[in-house]
Amino acid sequence: MDDAWAGPTVGQVGELAVLDRIVRRLPAGAPVLGPGDDCAVVAAPDGRFVVTTDMMVHGPDFRWAWSSPADVGWKAAATNLSDVAAMGATPSGLVIALAAPQDTPVAVLESFADGVRQAVDALSPGCGVVGGDLSTSATFTVSVTAFGDLGGRGPVLRSGAHVGDVLAVSGELGRAARGLARLFRDGVDEHREPSRAVTVASGADADPDVDRQRRPVPPIADGVHAAAAGATAMLDLSDGLAIDAGRLARASGVSLALDPLPELDAVALHGGEDHGLLATFPPHVALPGGFRRLGLVVARGDADLVRDGEPVPTTGWDPYADWDGAAG
Amino acid sequence: MDDAWAGPTVGQVGELAVLDRIVRRLPAGAPVLGPGDDCAVVAAPDGRFVVTTDMMVHGPDFRWAWSSPADVGWKAAATNLSDVAAMGATPSGLVIALAAPQDTPVAVLESFADGVRQAVDALSPGCGVVGGDLSTSATFTVSVTAFGDLGGRGPVLRSGAHVGDVLAVSGELGRAARGLARLFRDGVDEHREPSRAVTVASGADADPDVDRQRRPVPPIADGVHAAAAGATAMLDLSDGLAIDAGRLARASGVSLALDPLPELDAVALHGGEDHGLLATFPPHVALPGGFRRLGLVVARGDADLVRDGEPVPTTGWDPYADWDGAAG
Repeated sequence: MDDAWAGPTVGQVGELAVLDRIVRRLPAGAPVLGPGDDCAVVAAPDGRFVVTTDMMVHGPDFRWAWSSPADVGWKAAATNLSDVAAMGATPSGLVIALAAPQDTPVAVLESFADGVRQAVDALSPGCGVVGGDLSTSATFTVSVTAFGDLGGRGPVLRSGAHVGDVLAVSGELGRAARGLARLFRDGVDEHREPSRAVTVASGADADPDVDRQRRPVPPIADGVHAAAAGATAMLDLSDGLAIDAGRLARASGVSLALDPLPELDAVALHGGEDHGLLATFPPHVALPGGFRRLGLVVARGDADLVRDGEPVPTTGWDPYADWDGAAG
Repeated sequence: MDDAWAGPTVGQVGELAVLDRIVRRLPAGAPVLGPGDDCAVVAAPDGRFVVTTDMMVHGPDFRWAWSSPADVGWKAAATNLSDVAAMGATPSGLVIALAAPQDTPVAVLESFADGVRQAVDALSPGCGVVGGDLSTSATFTVSVTAFGDLGGRGPVLRSGAHVGDVLAVSGELGRAARGLARLFRDGVDEHREPSRAVTVASGADADPDVDRQRRPVPPIADGVHAAAAGATAMLDLSDGLAIDAGRLARASGVSLALDPLPELDAVALHGGEDHGLLATFPPHVALPGGFRRLGLVVARGDADLVRDGEPVPTTGWDPYADWDGAAG
């Protein structure tokens, strides 16, 4: 078991002492006013700001048997930063609300904070955690809200794709899903319950795809690169290429025709949680940063997404319908 | 039991249909861009914005036996709006992340949204819910993040009180705590578990103080009134007058001397969740809006808070140390 799962608990140490131990580990950024008052104050030189929020819940969204507290901190930060990038904005701040059971070791919350800092340092240096809230709950729950600055550009919506635009992606496809499949295969005990010991013994813990599942690496800077290059539409790939491409297609009133790329296998099409950026660019634009061509925007047909003239199903994960209730 | 606790569940209906039924009930406000893309966009004409976040968890923060879903929605919105007001800002938007057990009736989430709308309409009309996230969890959890516009003024911090300033409050003191005490006395069954039937039968359900506990009425507009009148320090009264006054005193490096007011009984001093505004004003300033004098800012002494020359204890509620683990 992770070393973080030992030592005094948050119930023993109390809210103020826990806060003190966490806040110093978080990235400070450069807010106008940081934590400590009723509100933080964040600069919005553009005269507007983008905002997104995402909650991660123990059970449906992560298992302690498979993810360390630092992994959960990394992922909570990275997925929100990715939504900011998908508007073409630069992340300017985060606030984090966290509720933990009273018997949670304080070291777990410290490791969580370390993971947040590692993600921000790696993906969007300079973006600070400007505020937060610490609560207690029977279920470990993290809620992150992220802000971004558009730098004078218009937000890149999912609704702006035009017929003739090039469809492109930045970031890897399918690795997070392959990692999750590996965990469900090689990280469960004989009752099919997630098991840390089995995950380590099987080698799954050291699988780079598993690491991508636990610590996605969204190409944050490519959001601004895409906006500056004139991207007509963009979104974050959270639920899988097919379902998210379907959203872009419906919002824009177009269909999307995929190139016959070997890369686009079933896992790349339907696996979620890669947090790459899917965007459309006018023809003749040189694709910026890490973007590579996936296909073309075509006139709206019967299907959102087609390949070789055949429709590609655009379905995915529904947390209400699909969660089996297990935690682990 | 509340009518909301019947009908199809979120697990049966699925995330998209639930979202569709909730979003239409929420206040829209006037964002630059509302829900539906990776991020919302909110205007920040001042070039900066204030932000606060607060999580409410079933068990430590509310009980279904005592609060309706609409009560929880009201309180989640009101407490965050109050933090924005305490900076001297006008609320400009909210984002809400909500996680509910899969067997929660959709009508519960609809009633929750109605409560949010009722609070915004009553307390801060024009402030919309610009975005959110819907998840599933074993524990019903709401996380609200609120934004505000300073309108060109500096934020009113808790650290700016000067010796000689007048200490003043806007809002009622002690009513929320009296309501909570009534619930713990007249809203529990023979095992001291919260009971909706007992709460109704005893008359506690119709007690106006109980209603204040469930639906606090923070004087949002008085935040801007205080800032415009030159308030030197201000904070939201969430944990009780004594503990919150202590925070203001320590942050400002002063002590606070209370007038011998009959209003300041033990419940008024130590009861939490009133969400009034505590502020200090330069002498000779006419107190604005609903503010009334409570005392004076004096030179820093041994105690944060004194009355009749005696120290007033500045202790309060710690969710990690004090929650008994019960839900109800």
